[in-house]
Amino acid sequence: MKTHEDWMRLAWQLAQSTAGQTAPNPMVGAVVVKDGYMVGSGAHLRAGTPHAEVHALNMAGEQAKEATLYVTLEPCNHYGRTPPCTEKILDSGIKRVVIGSLDPDPLVAGKGVERLREAGLEVILGVCEKECQRLNEAYFHHRRTGHPFVTLKMAMTLDGKIATIQGDSKWITNEESRQMVHQLRRQYDAILVGVGTVLKDDPRLTSRLEAGGIHPLRVILDSRLRTPVDAAITDTSVAPTWIFTTEGRDPEKERQLTAKGVRIISTGMGPLVDLDVVLSELGRHGILSLLVEGGGEVNAAFLHGNYVQKVIAFVAPKLLGGRQSRTAVEGENPLYMSEAKCLKEIHVERYGDDLCVIGYL
Amino acid sequence: MKTHEDWMRLAWQLAQSTAGQTAPNPMVGAVVVKDGYMVGSGAHLRAGTPHAEVHALNMAGEQAKEATLYVTLEPCNHYGRTPPCTEKILDSGIKRVVIGSLDPDPLVAGKGVERLREAGLEVILGVCEKECQRLNEAYFHHRRTGHPFVTLKMAMTLDGKIATIQGDSKWITNEESRQMVHQLRRQYDAILVGVGTVLKDDPRLTSRLEAGGIHPLRVILDSRLRTPVDAAITDTSVAPTWIFTTEGRDPEKERQLTAKGVRIISTGMGPLVDLDVVLSELGRHGILSLLVEGGGEVNAAFLHGNYVQKVIAFVAPKLLGGRQSRTAVEGENPLYMSEAKCLKEIHVERYGDDLCVIGYL
Repeated sequence: MKTHEDWMRLAWQLAQSTAGQTAPNPMVGAVVVKDGYMVGSGAHLRAGTPHAEVHALNMAGEQAKEATLYVTLEPCNHYGRTPPCTEKILDSGIKRVVIGSLDPDPLVAGKGVERLREAGLEVILGVCEKECQRLNEAYFHHRRTGHPFVTLKMAMTLDGKIATIQGDSKWITNEESRQMVHQLRRQYDAILVGVGTVLKDDPRLTSRLEAGGIHPLRVILDSRLRTPVDAAITDTSVAPTWIFTTEGRDPEKERQLTAKGVRIISTGMGPLVDLDVVLSELGRHGILSLLVEGGGEVNAAFLHGNYVQKVIAFVAPKLLGGRQSRTAVEGENPLYMSEAKCLKEIHVERYGDDLCVIGYL
Repeated sequence: MKTHEDWMRLAWQLAQSTAGQTAPNPMVGAVVVKDGYMVGSGAHLRAGTPHAEVHALNMAGEQAKEATLYVTLEPCNHYGRTPPCTEKILDSGIKRVVIGSLDPDPLVAGKGVERLREAGLEVILGVCEKECQRLNEAYFHHRRTGHPFVTLKMAMTLDGKIATIQGDSKWITNEESRQMVHQLRRQYDAILVGVGTVLKDDPRLTSRLEAGGIHPLRVILDSRLRTPVDAAITDTSVAPTWIFTTEGRDPEKERQLTAKGVRIISTGMGPLVDLDVVLSELGRHGILSLLVEGGGEVNAAFLHGNYVQKVIAFVAPKLLGGRQSRTAVEGENPLYMSEAKCLKEIHVERYGDDLCVIGYL
């Protein structure tokens, strides 16, 4: 006999498989179970399309009567781009709803549960709650703060180096780790680099895993608008590109980049791009999650401003050395070791001989 | 019924428990088994005292007749500071000898096995061979090269920093990791630091685990003999201290340090201490294993000279940042990432949230 947790984990997996395609909506999965058998399953695929519960209930049809609905996130009780799920649930004849986590969005926030209970349904809350919250850590953060959930991704040697004095960084990590980075990019709504990376590597910052996938928004921090007009990243036919700059930018360069479809946003007088403006603007446009693939200075700026929620550090078991080799986090010099930012909830993965250290700030 | 491997592992554990006390001899453990029961056990405790086989056979007494002897390292067949173990084995009535690894010392190197087989005993070789070789990796290296086996121990933040710009490093790792470092020190015959560490931290470099333990030889690299006469490390009543310097040293300072029992060794004209001379001198004095607890420059010098066999890196899950914070390996600037030294046989341990990455060069 399967438990509530077993069914919720299935719903969780359905939700998780939509990573990177639902923004600005959360990932949600749902399963309908009757007499111990699954009779319906679904996930929310894309903003503006039906919610997970609707797909699962449609699949169940008449079988939904007297059945149990498992859903990773509280069903909505308001008219958004789709009708409220609570009404669909009530119409379906479902008798019990098991919910992973409440929805932090003020439009929902317990109102879905209330409506179902008022209508006489049994509602069970908090099954696999932590996993369901973690699944939508970006959505939860965005709804609370208005900013995207920021993850710093680093790739470095064991002695913390990300490049030699002349900028060579090919390759630090192994093939397996680099594949993981492509998978990671698919799960974020936007990827951010500094203009230094654009000038040095001319990256496309697309997810190379499959043709036809959804590519994340590409974001460049470029205070003086030095991004070359013919850089690979200015080809906006594959994915949109936004450049955050300052009032000190060259208007002619702006015109040329704009003509290629690049969106240019000034964050003020400078001299540096104002990260608070960057994050507010991204959040306002429904970007729930941002993967920062910066160098040491960009990483330091995000950390210094306390803008980082998560760190994913790929560490290759090699020692580069070099007094002036570039390190994963640079910025101003702290005087005391106690100023270091500590990561919590540490989790370590292995990709071949590379380590991947994941933690939260 | 226990297997050869089971008994060999017991012998291995006996051997391993003597780490740090047998130099210049290897660690060896032995078990005597008759009709499936252990009737004797022993380990070599200290140079000049009986070998492991002797202790185990003495314990077994008459029971050794027709029994099997398990020993982690090939029994010796020569008169050293003690008589040959092969003769003791033959006298005991043992009928079968199971050996973990052959002894690389040219005085033994298969001759022990030969003697036993000639006398009609059954000899089984290579049971848990890799573990038994690894157990004495230092001894094997020393007998092959004349140098001690060198381990770099590092303690750093996730971004590779070992101190702030002004040298603050308290604390990078957690209490559990620091306890492990004390255990590690006990297992090495010598510990090496640069004079910078002496000037900054005034360390004792003793193993603080227990009073009465054997403290390793303390070695300082100090090209200009800047070690203060009243530094904690010059108190040679707890453990010996050797300072490697150059011809450019101050003779008066040398006199004062020598008066305190510190041994001063010049490695030549300088300007830096010649590491080849350091390692040869340590090897010549029976130092099998050296733990280098250097800063970034000392670490780089050892790595650059290819003098390092093993790296033990404690990594605390925190990010310090700082363009001029000190990193785990400094030295000359490599131009290409491909110049990084790769570690092999990577093994990762966790101490609380700290990671410990262990690898071989």
